[in-house]
Amino acid sequence: MSELRRDPISGRWVILATERSGRPTDFVSAQADLTSGACPFCPGEEAETPPEVYVERESGPANGPGWTIRVVSNKFPALGDDGEFELRTEGLFEFSHGVGAHEVIIESPGHEDRLSDLPLESYATLIRAIRARFLDLGRDSRFRTIQVFKNSGARAGATLSHGHTQLMATPIVPPHLEEKIAGFGRHFEKQQSCLLCDILSEERERQARIIFETDEFVALAPFASRLPYETLLVPKRHQARFEEADDAQVYGLAPALQELLARMANRLEYPPYNLCLHTAPLRGGKSFPCFHWHWELLPRLSKVAGFEWGTGIYINSTSPEVAAADLRRVRLKAGTGGPDKG
Amino acid sequence: MSELRRDPISGRWVILATERSGRPTDFVSAQADLTSGACPFCPGEEAETPPEVYVERESGPANGPGWTIRVVSNKFPALGDDGEFELRTEGLFEFSHGVGAHEVIIESPGHEDRLSDLPLESYATLIRAIRARFLDLGRDSRFRTIQVFKNSGARAGATLSHGHTQLMATPIVPPHLEEKIAGFGRHFEKQQSCLLCDILSEERERQARIIFETDEFVALAPFASRLPYETLLVPKRHQARFEEADDAQVYGLAPALQELLARMANRLEYPPYNLCLHTAPLRGGKSFPCFHWHWELLPRLSKVAGFEWGTGIYINSTSPEVAAADLRRVRLKAGTGGPDKG
Repeated sequence: MSELRRDPISGRWVILATERSGRPTDFVSAQADLTSGACPFCPGEEAETPPEVYVERESGPANGPGWTIRVVSNKFPALGDDGEFELRTEGLFEFSHGVGAHEVIIESPGHEDRLSDLPLESYATLIRAIRARFLDLGRDSRFRTIQVFKNSGARAGATLSHGHTQLMATPIVPPHLEEKIAGFGRHFEKQQSCLLCDILSEERERQARIIFETDEFVALAPFASRLPYETLLVPKRHQARFEEADDAQVYGLAPALQELLARMANRLEYPPYNLCLHTAPLRGGKSFPCFHWHWELLPRLSKVAGFEWGTGIYINSTSPEVAAADLRRVRLKAGTGGPDKG
Repeated sequence: MSELRRDPISGRWVILATERSGRPTDFVSAQADLTSGACPFCPGEEAETPPEVYVERESGPANGPGWTIRVVSNKFPALGDDGEFELRTEGLFEFSHGVGAHEVIIESPGHEDRLSDLPLESYATLIRAIRARFLDLGRDSRFRTIQVFKNSGARAGATLSHGHTQLMATPIVPPHLEEKIAGFGRHFEKQQSCLLCDILSEERERQARIIFETDEFVALAPFASRLPYETLLVPKRHQARFEEADDAQVYGLAPALQELLARMANRLEYPPYNLCLHTAPLRGGKSFPCFHWHWELLPRLSKVAGFEWGTGIYINSTSPEVAAADLRRVRLKAGTGGPDKG
């Protein structure tokens, strides 16, 4: 029942999802935690969520305890799975029924588990679940992109404290993705090469903004970081779409993501953060030879204020060179990705 | 000593202002208020700020007490007033010395005064000060735009509680302004009319999103509001630039802005908010016959989360029709703009 509306001046879409205002933690300023009641994401509470669309379980029947990871539709979806995207116009205003999908990936049965502390196998499970949902939702011709994001901590927009990642299929290509596609396109036209491959090679030569490398991935602080300790996690192999990653890459992502979150948790004492996947629009549309998928990790340490809202320009008080050096310096316990402060 | 850096993928500029990390309230999660020490914006503390560049005073010499409004350079400027904008390139990366101006308008001598409670004369004084600074800074050929914004409340990014508005001159046209200019341009090409004049006429016919009108201004909840209770305040007369407003408009703005803030304070119990002025780039560049200046008021009631960061699409749980009806319903004390809950 949500609606997509297009701003006639900026051309930007918004999602109007008025059912979501029923969520009790909206407009609450303090640390939000629904778990004063029972947590709907905990084992035993499966009836409190819609039925699972993906699950890995060690025991028990569907929609009961025994799972290690569980994907369900969001009970308060911002975009719903019924109807079609159909542009309607009233005078100067354009809008559509808000079609899409909005799912929640419950990362672990443990209510207190933090992703940054989880073992390697939990990361592999999470990445497997995301890829499975891409492959399933990607068959729906109504959807043009899938957005994967995690809100960790109330200041980063989390409304439930039990660790979860979200996934939304959208019927339009969002502006940030359009901007990135345009940037990759401009570079490809000039250089006949991938912009992010070229950035990786330049950054690896300079080293100043590199946080770490694994066999398959590079973590770096981007040159024009908007936020203190913003990082990119980029596969070394050129590839437009996350869902095209082969098993070696998918499983190479697990230790890389684990190490990045562990370094961040250690250096910044478990900061609130958002984690976002950027990947080319789904197959079915045109191909995107010049896109290169990547993750953005955005610690939410500073406030977004009027200048940023008014202009779209961010004022960042921590240089990416300082942030990268700081994150390189963190000592991690061998093998686990868990922080070792000793 | 700040630096402008351009993101090679999105093409967006950021301001790297690392001196600002010395501000003690950065990275503080709780309510920030420096006034546990002396407030540098209070009368008697004038030596704690750079000297005034604009002032209205009832008594006393420059840079001492006796003022009613006072404009000074920001002690921690995000863009500094020395040097030139000069694009430099290192490999894939573009950057420049961060030239500009960053000023603070101290709205009232009273430390506890809230703009939404101030009398009409204080609004007239504030608007006069903004216009004076536009006319002065606008003569500097290095500056392409002036951004006016207010952060009210810690959640909206304020780091000092004493009421103030900020003003930044930028050597580049920010992306949000570029987007708006493009939107006005597309409409003008098709219709040979101003997009915002046409929106005003359509909204005034429908009434559903109109909050109130004065002789010179209309306050409305935009069709594609990104945030709950987002509002636009728009002059009825078509005009590209704020600084071109004549006295009747400038003084017509005072009661309109006062009424909008008072309605918001009453309905939402003094919410944190950002207030941003959108006006065409400064004279000296090309003319913008199809732009129409306006204010955006953004209450900061909800959290910006991973989906918004990843996509640029906002999920809004309060429809602008509901917000406008709510704000229309507020009863104000006649003449003062102050709320009357009786």
